[in-house]
Amino acid sequence: MYNLLKGKRGIIFGALNSSSIAWKVAEKAHEEGAIFTLTNTPVAMRFGEINELAANCNNAEIIPADATNIDDLENLISKSMEVLGGKLDFILHSIGMSLNVRKGRTYDDLDYNYFMKTLDISSLSFHKVIQVARKMDAMNEWGSIVALSYIAAQRTLYGYNDMADAKAILESIARSFGYIYGRDKKVRINTISQSPTRTTAGSGVKGIDGLIDFTDRMSPLGNADAAECADFCIVLFSDLSRKITMQNIYHDGGFSSMGMSYKAMNQYNKSFDNPDEILKD
Amino acid sequence: MYNLLKGKRGIIFGALNSSSIAWKVAEKAHEEGAIFTLTNTPVAMRFGEINELAANCNNAEIIPADATNIDDLENLISKSMEVLGGKLDFILHSIGMSLNVRKGRTYDDLDYNYFMKTLDISSLSFHKVIQVARKMDAMNEWGSIVALSYIAAQRTLYGYNDMADAKAILESIARSFGYIYGRDKKVRINTISQSPTRTTAGSGVKGIDGLIDFTDRMSPLGNADAAECADFCIVLFSDLSRKITMQNIYHDGGFSSMGMSYKAMNQYNKSFDNPDEILKD
Amino acid sequence: MYNLLKGKRGIIFGALNSSSIAWKVAEKAHEEGAIFTLTNTPVAMRFGEINELAANCNNAEIIPADATNIDDLENLISKSMEVLGGKLDFILHSIGMSLNVRKGRTYDDLDYNYFMKTLDISSLSFHKVIQVARKMDAMNEWGSIVALSYIAAQRTLYGYNDMADAKAILESIARSFGYIYGRDKKVRINTISQSPTRTTAGSGVKGIDGLIDFTDRMSPLGNADAAECADFCIVLFSDLSRKITMQNIYHDGGFSSMGMSYKAMNQYNKSFDNPDEILKD
Amino acid sequence: MYNLLKGKRGIIFGALNSSSIAWKVAEKAHEEGAIFTLTNTPVAMRFGEINELAANCNNAEIIPADATNIDDLENLISKSMEVLGGKLDFILHSIGMSLNVRKGRTYDDLDYNYFMKTLDISSLSFHKVIQVARKMDAMNEWGSIVALSYIAAQRTLYGYNDMADAKAILESIARSFGYIYGRDKKVRINTISQSPTRTTAGSGVKGIDGLIDFTDRMSPLGNADAAECADFCIVLFSDLSRKITMQNIYHDGGFSSMGMSYKAMNQYNKSFDNPDEILKD
Repeated sequence: MYNLLKGKRGIIFGALNSSSIAWKVAEKAHEEGAIFTLTNTPVAMRFGEINELAANCNNAEIIPADATNIDDLENLISKSMEVLGGKLDFILHSIGMSLNVRKGRTYDDLDYNYFMKTLDISSLSFHKVIQVARKMDAMNEWGSIVALSYIAAQRTLYGYNDMADAKAILESIARSFGYIYGRDKKVRINTISQSPTRTTAGSGVKGIDGLIDFTDRMSPLGNADAAECADFCIVLFSDLSRKITMQNIYHDGGFSSMGMSYKAMNQYNKSFDNPDEILKD
Repeated sequence: MYNLLKGKRGIIFGALNSSSIAWKVAEKAHEEGAIFTLTNTPVAMRFGEINELAANCNNAEIIPADATNIDDLENLISKSMEVLGGKLDFILHSIGMSLNVRKGRTYDDLDYNYFMKTLDISSLSFHKVIQVARKMDAMNEWGSIVALSYIAAQRTLYGYNDMADAKAILESIARSFGYIYGRDKKVRINTISQSPTRTTAGSGVKGIDGLIDFTDRMSPLGNADAAECADFCIVLFSDLSRKITMQNIYHDGGFSSMGMSYKAMNQYNKSFDNPDEILKD
Repeated sequence: MYNLLKGKRGIIFGALNSSSIAWKVAEKAHEEGAIFTLTNTPVAMRFGEINELAANCNNAEIIPADATNIDDLENLISKSMEVLGGKLDFILHSIGMSLNVRKGRTYDDLDYNYFMKTLDISSLSFHKVIQVARKMDAMNEWGSIVALSYIAAQRTLYGYNDMADAKAILESIARSFGYIYGRDKKVRINTISQSPTRTTAGSGVKGIDGLIDFTDRMSPLGNADAAECADFCIVLFSDLSRKITMQNIYHDGGFSSMGMSYKAMNQYNKSFDNPDEILKD
Repeated sequence: MYNLLKGKRGIIFGALNSSSIAWKVAEKAHEEGAIFTLTNTPVAMRFGEINELAANCNNAEIIPADATNIDDLENLISKSMEVLGGKLDFILHSIGMSLNVRKGRTYDDLDYNYFMKTLDISSLSFHKVIQVARKMDAMNEWGSIVALSYIAAQRTLYGYNDMADAKAILESIARSFGYIYGRDKKVRINTISQSPTRTTAGSGVKGIDGLIDFTDRMSPLGNADAAECADFCIVLFSDLSRKITMQNIYHDGGFSSMGMSYKAMNQYNKSFDNPDEILKD
């Protein structure tokens, strides 16, 4: 559309199906002139439709990888550079999973092996991707690495469970490694804190419908959707955001800066059949 | 109760009636062994019941002052030191008023003279109090100055209007002057960001009942009330918080760190007679 | 370059000379296909070189306006719409001035008339521009309004004086009005918190050279310059950031997320002729 | 001194020797009328002087426990309730250790087993303590749980390594569990972000002397020391802070709100033998 990523090479993690943010990022990155490889775990690839995406993106190469496995990451990165014909300019990390959530373990009854798995899959994988890329000197100067986060890193949401802690450490890794990779190679690392999104992953969160309604009414621009999020990923991959690093940027229709909107308050007040119930328990 | 303020002298701004936070602070400070003067504008004093408070606090001296007027502040501070027998150890600033709110001017139709007045009364008065105290060298080392703020300084609330901007600059003044007064005289300056409170001032805010219900259900400990806020003011005046300065501390039952609670979500969901209405406008 | 602003119309406040951020924004906006008017106060226009800029931007119309004056703003906006042939898509607010700084009044000796002037010129002008635009219904849906801020809004810097408070309220206005204008017309309002920049305005700040050296060594990517800041303004004006509003985005080479870098610490340590001096006063 | 903790029972983790913050907390808690047990790992107890502390605190019981081990924690908590004669009112978590730091693995060359260990010891241990306490219903209503954090959770410091990420998740756990434990039992959970402190743990951090000098000159009140930190821990355990939860409170002499102080800038500028070197690399 604008050729913002013309000549840029990248890797996109986490495109499962057409509701995935990573899917939209791939489509937009292709439109903007980038070439890239796609990756996901073998399991996710079986359930998803990544082949269709690859076909839409000029037959992008699909390279399976478990993002918690160093060997897989080394293979992914070296093959990507080979296939794409040079060092990388961008990486999207869109990975998150909690066995505690899946198995219905609430936050006051966590299984600690699962908790460790949540952190390894959802957060340490981000460190691993970056560390492997850096050791292989796989990024061009002014390259850009982005991970997707959520406001649960700052504010507790009922039911989001240990994913909140995973997002907190994900954003911390972006800062910690952003300093080092920026200082040494001008590579920038940021996270985007996106509105709740009805992806396959997002759908697993308890009571997601009510929450999405609430955040939509709270946000002056409404919730941001996956395609809009992808637009901003493109911006962060482009040369127009070169001096932004170690940041978590809210892409959420304004939600993060809202205390209470008229629309949400109005809806909330409808919950009282009788105004006298207000402030009664 | 604990003698936390034994031997300390102070000035308390803004006690109107027994629902005022400043009123509770005066009562607690008295209990904790402090001596202090009370002050308010002549108008507020006519409508309020400050004489009753003074009587309860060992006949504390009442010294009228318009906190936007330098002469008044000089008079207040010099008389206070005279009456109390020495320099001051603490000051509470609990002042806020918006003519735009009172006159029903919405935020997209502000009267700019009123806006300036809002800032002068609610925020610059804080700077004036501090600047006058500093010029008169009226504070003892390790003295403590506290102003009351609200989360509207960080997040927009429908109807809070230009008071949000006033709180933002109030907190900024605490930082800016906290640096200087700390560096030079070890005086610390902080703000407390308090739950919405049903004071005479708070009651003026549009839709306050629904909001208080919502924040109460969102906050794991419920809203903090005026007496609890006063407890924490005492802490900030005491010697136990000597190295805290330039901070805005949330005293709000946890609200500021909440994204969504079960109780609030549950109440919100009751607003839909029919679950199919969710996410419909 | 990318045609990111093709067909968009705007107003750019505050281009004084070629070191101004607003100057760079105008040049880039022109390159990206926008048409716009330029404005500044009559005084600033006499001292500046805005005619040269206008010539470079396809003879952009220059419309003098004092941004604190409602009549001037109404004239500016109506003429701009007339000249540009339609409603506006973007506005850049790059305005700041403190008489206290200019006259050497330190923060503990502020002149309160000057303080009010600082706020009126540097902050309330932002509200005025938006309020006038909104009353005139001058913005297209999904339009974008940006003001330039500085980290002094969050952290106190020696010598930055009442401009810190002005930036705090500027960012608050972006949130407060961002809610309303977003809700009603999908117009988004953000601030960019830019590295210290050697503009004509920035040069007035005390000890700016040492500070710029420090922030440059602290920031993994070094300080962001005016041209880079302009790139990101273009992004915020473009359709690729439609769901970002009410945010303050740090464009600062990573400085805001740094506690201490190796380079800055190393330089700092050189200040001790003898390591034994460390931690001695 | 004030009897702030009269009748309260607690557990204090992490007192190694007299420079430990936990050591000071134990001394102050004792002075303020609390009774408590002391705990540390068997290894730390061998190297430390915890017996001396216990003797000073009315022969407080020492119960060894590895805070990452659920059985140990269950034993610790049940024995503590037994010894102290009832449920607990406060817990201090002062635990942190990074094998990556110890073994000299830099942040771009982390050993991931060590990283997991860092998180387990420094952060997940906090969750484990709370989860075990809650399952055993070991806390009284309005009890208070505090962990010690550091500004590295928000801002990257050279050499702090994976402890930054550990502190980020520590603070997140305080929020996540603070919601649940507050909602169900009114137990509050907070972290204190303390100045860099010359404890045995703190001394391991690279270049700590220069950093401590810098933060001291940056902070208007100077760095906070361990005893002052202990004072504020007492406050958070007391009834005077009942409505504060899920917060991270900076106890740092103002450092966190500083951008640049006169003293630090002045010292920094001395590093240039010749002012022309400024801004040269």
